[in-house]
Amino acid sequence: MATYKMVLAYDGTRYRGWQRLGSGDTIQGRVESALAQVLGVPVQISGSGRTDAGAHAKGQVASFQTDTRLSPQRMLSQLRHILPEDIGVLELEQASPRFHARLCASQKTYCYRIWNSPVPCVFDRRYVWQLPSALDVPAMAESAQQFLGRHDFRGFCANRQMKKSTVRTITACTVARCGQEVRFTVTGDGFLHHMVRILVGTLVEIGQGKRLPESIPAVLASGVRAEAGETAPARGLCLMEVRYQ
Amino acid sequence: MATYKMVLAYDGTRYRGWQRLGSGDTIQGRVESALAQVLGVPVQISGSGRTDAGAHAKGQVASFQTDTRLSPQRMLSQLRHILPEDIGVLELEQASPRFHARLCASQKTYCYRIWNSPVPCVFDRRYVWQLPSALDVPAMAESAQQFLGRHDFRGFCANRQMKKSTVRTITACTVARCGQEVRFTVTGDGFLHHMVRILVGTLVEIGQGKRLPESIPAVLASGVRAEAGETAPARGLCLMEVRYQ
Repeated sequence: MATYKMVLAYDGTRYRGWQRLGSGDTIQGRVESALAQVLGVPVQISGSGRTDAGAHAKGQVASFQTDTRLSPQRMLSQLRHILPEDIGVLELEQASPRFHARLCASQKTYCYRIWNSPVPCVFDRRYVWQLPSALDVPAMAESAQQFLGRHDFRGFCANRQMKKSTVRTITACTVARCGQEVRFTVTGDGFLHHMVRILVGTLVEIGQGKRLPESIPAVLASGVRAEAGETAPARGLCLMEVRYQ
Repeated sequence: MATYKMVLAYDGTRYRGWQRLGSGDTIQGRVESALAQVLGVPVQISGSGRTDAGAHAKGQVASFQTDTRLSPQRMLSQLRHILPEDIGVLELEQASPRFHARLCASQKTYCYRIWNSPVPCVFDRRYVWQLPSALDVPAMAESAQQFLGRHDFRGFCANRQMKKSTVRTITACTVARCGQEVRFTVTGDGFLHHMVRILVGTLVEIGQGKRLPESIPAVLASGVRAEAGETAPARGLCLMEVRYQ
């Protein structure tokens, strides 16, 4: 058995997220069924993590093991042929036998795009959250600094019965205006369920003057989900990169 | 009656082109019906020109006349509310009574995007022609210079029974690689039916080594459509700007 690593990009608009489900159309399900067609045997792949229904990826990583005489290049071109046009395999290569996309991931970077203009965003409409009214971006950028470092992010997690540790370390976190867009970029060693979307929703409330920057350390201290902001819509979210040591 | 000018952006993927048809879903039809909702009376709009089924615009211009007490700003925000998310009104303002989007247009710029990489283009897939194999971009760029100036473009026109003049003046014409993309940008005083797409199809055949650059002056001289290249797919085409003197 050899181990393979693949890097994927997908427009998640019409999928029920990454993770294979009983019936729903998912990215993992589509990739596994394409791989099974190429290899002639069922294959299970492991993603670096789940992405939400409607969220996107430009650098999701998945690993799988199989026994095949096909070269990675050959598998890659056959997969590209079979997969729908909203799922693309960017890279596929043989990896060390110990490689596992989820267990070995050390850092992930997400980007969240807000279209902050009354002018409609026609071409990237599936990839942005359209918020026409003004946002105080400097206030959002300054507030975002408070997420940096090692914190218990329980208050920014959608899963209320989370039994495992909710402590994560954020190593980079920026908010920047880029024309009519406001981009939130965050890198960390891991993210809880809906965490990036709740961070964004909280920062947006600060940018709209509905919330004080001081509420962030308060939510980090209390761990109460209801004290954080709303969950931002999935469509603006994109998994940009997964790093391995 | 006052005259208004509007600038539109649209993703033409699911439409049968700009021009209103008996039954089909068209951009003009959608904008006219939204305007009728806003104004309470039927309104006819004139576009700067038709765009093909499946082609896009980032700067289509349309004009119309109406008698209303609504301010342009108010009309604009109501239109934005009604129109589907793949049609956006960028600007709307009162214009001189003599303004007519088609009759007064002096220059138009189109851009054609080719995705020239075996790596799939997931996010902009509706806006590019995906051509994975290598293109000789310098040869295409040099050949494109031959379109510059005043020529009879009959050989690059889909309409074989064209009775009006097929002479047009191209004032700028470039082909440039921009990462994995090859972009063709052309400005002229007007374009014939499918002309930009046939120019692109011809240049691509040169870039693939299937056609000689010398064939361009030959087609300009003969005016025979069959001697030019294939018509490139509509999805890569976008009307970028219409200028008025």
